[in-house]
Parts: sequence; structure tokens; C-alpha cells
Amino acid sequence: MMSLGIGRKDRGMKPLIQACLFDVFGTCVDWRGSVSRAVAAAVPGVEAEAFATAWRAQYDPAMARVREGARGYVALDELHLENLDTVARSFAVEIPDRVLLNAAWEQLDPWPDVVAGLTRLKREVIIAPCSNGSIALMTRLARHAGLPWDCILGADIARGYKPQPEVYLASCAALRLPPEAVMMVAAHNDDLIAARAAGLRTAFVPRPTEHGPGQVRDLIAQSDWDVIAGDFIDLAEKVAALGPGGGVSRAGA
Amino acid sequence: MMSLGIGRKDRGMKPLIQACLFDVFGTCVDWRGSVSRAVAAAVPGVEAEAFATAWRAQYDPAMARVREGARGYVALDELHLENLDTVARSFAVEIPDRVLLNAAWEQLDPWPDVVAGLTRLKREVIIAPCSNGSIALMTRLARHAGLPWDCILGADIARGYKPQPEVYLASCAALRLPPEAVMMVAAHNDDLIAARAAGLRTAFVPRPTEHGPGQVRDLIAQSDWDVIAGDFIDLAEKVAALGPGGGVSRAGA
Repeated sequence: MMSLGIGRKDRGMKPLIQACLFDVFGTCVDWRGSVSRAVAAAVPGVEAEAFATAWRAQYDPAMARVREGARGYVALDELHLENLDTVARSFAVEIPDRVLLNAAWEQLDPWPDVVAGLTRLKREVIIAPCSNGSIALMTRLARHAGLPWDCILGADIARGYKPQPEVYLASCAALRLPPEAVMMVAAHNDDLIAARAAGLRTAFVPRPTEHGPGQVRDLIAQSDWDVIAGDFIDLAEKVAALGPGGGVSRAGA
Repeated sequence: MMSLGIGRKDRGMKPLIQACLFDVFGTCVDWRGSVSRAVAAAVPGVEAEAFATAWRAQYDPAMARVREGARGYVALDELHLENLDTVARSFAVEIPDRVLLNAAWEQLDPWPDVVAGLTRLKREVIIAPCSNGSIALMTRLARHAGLPWDCILGADIARGYKPQPEVYLASCAALRLPPEAVMMVAAHNDDLIAARAAGLRTAFVPRPTEHGPGQVRDLIAQSDWDVIAGDFIDLAEKVAALGPGGGVSRAGA
């Protein structure tokens, strides 16, 4: 019974990992390559990769205003559209159909190991995105990329943005699981720092080309995450190997 | 582009059906048979079918208190557990493990046409439950029954219970779709009355044995629902036949 995870600790047993939550942009899908191609198709003549990178660079500042309370929760779809307008101005280009181009974020291609790894993992545990993307965005992206999620969690159900702890905690609560029975998977050390602080288990999978050939950050695990895997196939094998009664040691606990 | 549904009406076109939302208990799965079997296994000597029916009879009154504001939103998992205690008292039986028995609601078997019909429909439109079950309950039920949902919508994201209009409207909004681009599918005429009042399209699929061999309600469509189908295979074919540019006429609009 999945629901037996709650209370297991009280009986002196380590809780097993019952769900894996995933960062999506960068961890599951290649936003840079996919958005660059969409920009090239929609805005002839623009330096597409520079435009895509500039668009993405607006992402964190836009969410920061929501996190800091300067504005109420606005779904990422809207932030992406506002950011597109900002970047179009700075590149001095006209976007023929901005809503159409904004949907590029719903059509990102997965890294090659992702679908097979998630399919394997789904046999062991509940799998769901815990992304800053909305339910709408994550649903359409899953259909495009073939991501076999059990449900969609993350920013929308918490009405907040990672790394706010409530985004991780609301996702665990929606599954009626204690944080220690849930593992956050990300290619970004910062995401895992926040997940660990909220009480979740952590897994790091490097994506060394997310930011292009000259990437300098997140090339390696910067802490003793519970699992460090080469890709999603390796992750699935390592989670499966934890097995009944296995669990993982809780760093710092 | 899925997102083009918004605004399509403004351009003088009928919006297409872009998502189908489903009632689950009774429409997708046979709660009565499944819960009766779980009761028989967990509580030897009790009249299992009568117990299951009595348990389910507490469902609507429990939700009514939330709908009417007599208590705040409480997930259905908790209401089911409270109702189990009530019914156990009235049957004068002890439940050896009430949390375990309550998980019977996560392990209901689908009607025979459901998985094939949903799989076919998923090729055409987004499919998601719009149930009074929680995200946790619907997620585990989907894993048990093999329901290939794109995401989980319904009571939890609205923090309310059908037939409150906000449950249907929050589910459409989570997909960033206008209600007229979304079709509610149910075996219950009352559910469809509420969905239509909220602006959604409607489809009726009869489940004439949901309440046992003597069922008297919901044996037929009691209104001119947009689609009336014999089962989920028929539903999938009828939705697919609407095709690009087809749409369905909006009764009363």
C-alpha cells in the first residue's frame, strides 16, 4: 500500500522512496536546442541561439518578483510571454505570432535517456514533474515528449516558484507522502539544496550541455546527494536497487 | 497548437474539443464490486456488498458539509476514512486496519472498455479525471487500473467538490482552455447538468450496473448531451469523428 509510507518511521523503519519528482527544463528536456530551433523558424534573420538564451535569462528574474511578493502568482506561460516581448524589444525584432512562438516551451525535446528511464522508474515509484511550469505547459510538453508522468505537480498546485520550500512540500502533500519518502531529481545543485532543506531525498543527474558547449555550472554533484546517476537509465537502476527495506541514508539526519 | 483554443471563438470559428474530463467513480471504474471484495477480505462475516453500499452512501453527505461551508476543504481520502468509521459503528464491526481498507478506493477495477477507449481518445485530445477524488487517490488508482491520464485535475486543485462550478472551471483553467473547448464525460446526468451550466461540452456513457442489478437511476441520457455513447470505445470514435473544424453544437447556446 502506497499510503503506508506515512507512519512507517514511527514503526522504526526507514521510509522507502515512494515517489520521484523531477525538475523538467534542463533535467528532462533540452530547452536550449528546442527553443533555438523554434525561434529560427519563427523569426527569420535573428541569431536564434542568442535569442533563446536571452529569453531563458529572463526566467529567474520574472519568477523572483512572484517569490518576493512583488506580484501575485502568475503561471509561467504568462511570464514566458512577457519575457518574449522584452527580448523581442532588445533584439529589435517583430514576432509574427507571439502566442505561437511561446508554445515552443510546450514542445521541447527530451534528452535521449529520459523516456526509457522514466518508463523503467514508473514500475517502481510514482513519477511526476515538480517544475516551475504550469499544469497546462507540463501536460502539453509530456504529450509532445512522451513523458509518462503519473500526475503533474509543482508550481501551479503550490502557487509559488521553486526554490520556495512550499513548492516541494505541496507536491509531497498532494501525494499524501512525507517528504522523506519522496526523491527530487534535478540537474541543478541549487534545486537539490532547496529540496533537501525541505526534507526530501535528492538525486543528481548531470546535463553538461544544457547551457551549450561552454557550460561551466552544474557539471558535477556539489554535495553528497542521496543518488548521483549518469543518466535516467542509471537513476532508474539505482532507485530500483534501493528495493523494499533498502531506503537511502539521509545525509545530515 | 493546443493553446490556440483560447481566442478561436473571437476569430469566428467554433472551438474544437481539446480536452475530455472524466468522472471516475462509476464512470471509469466499478467501485461497488471492487470495494465489496475489499470489505469481504478485510472484515470476515460482514455482508460485504451492503457494507460497501452503506460506505458509499455517506459520500455525498460528507462532501455536502464542505460544499455548504460547514467545514473547510478536506480531501476525499479523509472523508472516506471518517465514513468508514461511521459505517463500521452502524454494522457493529471492528476494522483490523482501517487505513489499509480505506486504500480500497485506490484499487478499483476499470469497466472493460475504459483503458482501450481512453488510449484511443488520448491520441485526439488531452484526457484527465475531473473527480472528487484527490490527486493522491486518482494517481494511485490510475496506476492500479492502467488509466493513461495526461494529468490529474478535479477536486484537489479547486479545493471544492462537484457539482460546484469552480471544480469544472478550475480544471479547464488549469489546462488554459475555455470551457467550451472541454468535454465532461460522466455516467451521471447530474454531473453533466452542472458541467453544462459551467459552459463545458458534455458526453454521457451509461453504466447500468454501477449500483447493482436493481439500478433505477442514470440508465439513460436525460438531456440532449453533446455526445451520447454506448461505451468508451464508442465515445472515442465519436470524439475523433468531430475532427478538425467539426466541433459539436452547443445545446441551448
